[in-house]
Amino acid sequence: MRKISLMGATGSIGMQTLDVIRENKEQFELTAISAGRNIAETRKIIQEFNPRLVSVQLKEDAEVLKNEVAHGTKVLWGEEGLLETACHQDTDVLVNAVLGSVGLFPTLRAIEAGKTIAIANKETLVTAGHIVMEAAARNQVSLLPVDSEHSAIFQCLQGENTKNIESLIITASGGSFRDRTRTELEGVTVDEALNHPNWSMGAKITIDSATMMNKGLEVIEAHWLFGIPYENIKVLLHRESIIHSMVEFHDSSVMAQLGTPDMRVPIQYALTFPDRFARPRGGRLNLAEIGKLHFEEMDFERFRCLEYCFEAGKAGGSMPAVLNAANEAAVARFLNGEISFLDIETLIEKSLTKHELIKQPDLEAIREIDSETRRFVNELNLG
Amino acid sequence: MRKISLMGATGSIGMQTLDVIRENKEQFELTAISAGRNIAETRKIIQEFNPRLVSVQLKEDAEVLKNEVAHGTKVLWGEEGLLETACHQDTDVLVNAVLGSVGLFPTLRAIEAGKTIAIANKETLVTAGHIVMEAAARNQVSLLPVDSEHSAIFQCLQGENTKNIESLIITASGGSFRDRTRTELEGVTVDEALNHPNWSMGAKITIDSATMMNKGLEVIEAHWLFGIPYENIKVLLHRESIIHSMVEFHDSSVMAQLGTPDMRVPIQYALTFPDRFARPRGGRLNLAEIGKLHFEEMDFERFRCLEYCFEAGKAGGSMPAVLNAANEAAVARFLNGEISFLDIETLIEKSLTKHELIKQPDLEAIREIDSETRRFVNELNLG
Repeated sequence: MRKISLMGATGSIGMQTLDVIRENKEQFELTAISAGRNIAETRKIIQEFNPRLVSVQLKEDAEVLKNEVAHGTKVLWGEEGLLETACHQDTDVLVNAVLGSVGLFPTLRAIEAGKTIAIANKETLVTAGHIVMEAAARNQVSLLPVDSEHSAIFQCLQGENTKNIESLIITASGGSFRDRTRTELEGVTVDEALNHPNWSMGAKITIDSATMMNKGLEVIEAHWLFGIPYENIKVLLHRESIIHSMVEFHDSSVMAQLGTPDMRVPIQYALTFPDRFARPRGGRLNLAEIGKLHFEEMDFERFRCLEYCFEAGKAGGSMPAVLNAANEAAVARFLNGEISFLDIETLIEKSLTKHELIKQPDLEAIREIDSETRRFVNELNLG
Repeated sequence: MRKISLMGATGSIGMQTLDVIRENKEQFELTAISAGRNIAETRKIIQEFNPRLVSVQLKEDAEVLKNEVAHGTKVLWGEEGLLETACHQDTDVLVNAVLGSVGLFPTLRAIEAGKTIAIANKETLVTAGHIVMEAAARNQVSLLPVDSEHSAIFQCLQGENTKNIESLIITASGGSFRDRTRTELEGVTVDEALNHPNWSMGAKITIDSATMMNKGLEVIEAHWLFGIPYENIKVLLHRESIIHSMVEFHDSSVMAQLGTPDMRVPIQYALTFPDRFARPRGGRLNLAEIGKLHFEEMDFERFRCLEYCFEAGKAGGSMPAVLNAANEAAVARFLNGEISFLDIETLIEKSLTKHELIKQPDLEAIREIDSETRRFVNELNLG
């Protein structure tokens, strides 16, 4: 029986993690969850899985839930609640599926507590990869990727020696706007941007797919997870999202992981690793039915956010934290109808240009840079 | 320094194995070779690699070579020479790249001698898989596949537990005649059949590609190499031969190995396993340049030899030996201009129908069945 803490239980990855646990009730037990403000959904999860610890974002919600839950269920709130969820004493694996840079501190706390971490929170590695990977190595903790791309690379590397890697090839569907020119991107609406061709995901990550920022953040994450220089990480446009990513070795052999676009497969793999459990109910890949797989070079001129990510990653230090905070704030303004789609790029670029690099920022510095960048983006008037 | 015996040195796989050794002279030493009747090429190999043992097919050729080679080089001939090549005392790895069922006995001798075997000779496993795999298990000897398809599957299985396999998916380019109807196949010439779209190979195996017998023999070989029932082995038409084969796991994840169509990559992998050596001179896979990969269901009506292979494999016992001998004899008759292309199928089918199954044939029985089937095919008048 593997005991699981799930941070971000009511989000897209969180709900799919619950599906995996539901399908394997003899193997998995849900020990602790954290959720945001979706109390109706949180209540359902408590009823179905009966976790020992529940944490929500707001104090008032926690107080309502406290009166409802069974005796022995602990209810917490806020950052302290998140931290307790992350390193609950009975937990074997923490699934970190919260959105945004709020995922960083709980991850570090779980690493110190020696938990295995299934990591779906990009920002943890993007903003503080140097700190997180050092802590993981020091505590001999495994970081198992949940993202389909990183899970694919991780699967391709089983039984292999990382010294033999020539390059990581991260595939990209191209997002909602892959067939639009830059001019055509000028007037796109929030609804258009939220319509992803292959994957069903949350709003922020869907916008990040449309700008290709999502792919760029994955590049930075891959750099940290697998210890590969940016020069050896490639992004390949692959519309069908069937090949989830690849690894090329020095001998020119390329390993790839394929599947239908179903996040439950990489989630389950992270929870069962190094074993695999059957998924009798999941859809099977049928390549003959699909018929063709397409591949194209990535257009860095068209997808500037991707270029910014490579640049920020290579600059290192505090730069990726600026990139990430600027993007989060800019996407929020776009979803809020305050700025246009292409303004997201502009705000990120301005934030990066303005920032003076700190080479080895500590957690306090990263937190400050994060707040400062958000303030800058929120106050900038592009009119 | 890994010491290599190479059987079938002047054939297509043999010459490419020599390329690999040539490119890695600090890591590999050629200890022993066997060749057929191509004495000019054998002489060149002796001059370049200076092996300690050389074996050729005919006594008279051996006697000519004996007078030419340096002192200390042993020259042998015939079956006895093959057997000595297979288990030369200084050899670490035997590359068995001979064509046809002549490869069986030397493989068994090498297994008894505890050599690691890089196996490119299909007939060894097709005709006597039950005997060979039992001997390999008993002597704890590794059989490393050289064929691009089996090497791909072998690479996909690294770090995995075979209990989690759902199916093996062997890809097939479809050979020279993949776009012809059965009616169009009636009058095809030997030259047309020898023109393979993707791979440069020997004559017999190129004809086997055109009839799809090659793919069928690979199915039987995969059954033995990986211990997977025929019901869980699929063949998928994939024109570009870029995905060399795949493994689907119970969790619906599919692992694939890709590369340019260059046999030196799987050959080198078998020689360096579990490590990989760089191939700085090899062509790299560029999927963006290739643009599209195609996949189609296999047409078992059109490619009857493939169906015969599944049937013979499932029947088991002596049936695959009949299939293989009938095919070898029939292809020889086709290359000799005696029969038409579709007569190959007919001769195989008649041989299988006529044969009475022996459930656990020993080596003597397999040898007899082989001769008997060849005689039957050679004497049958289809006129």
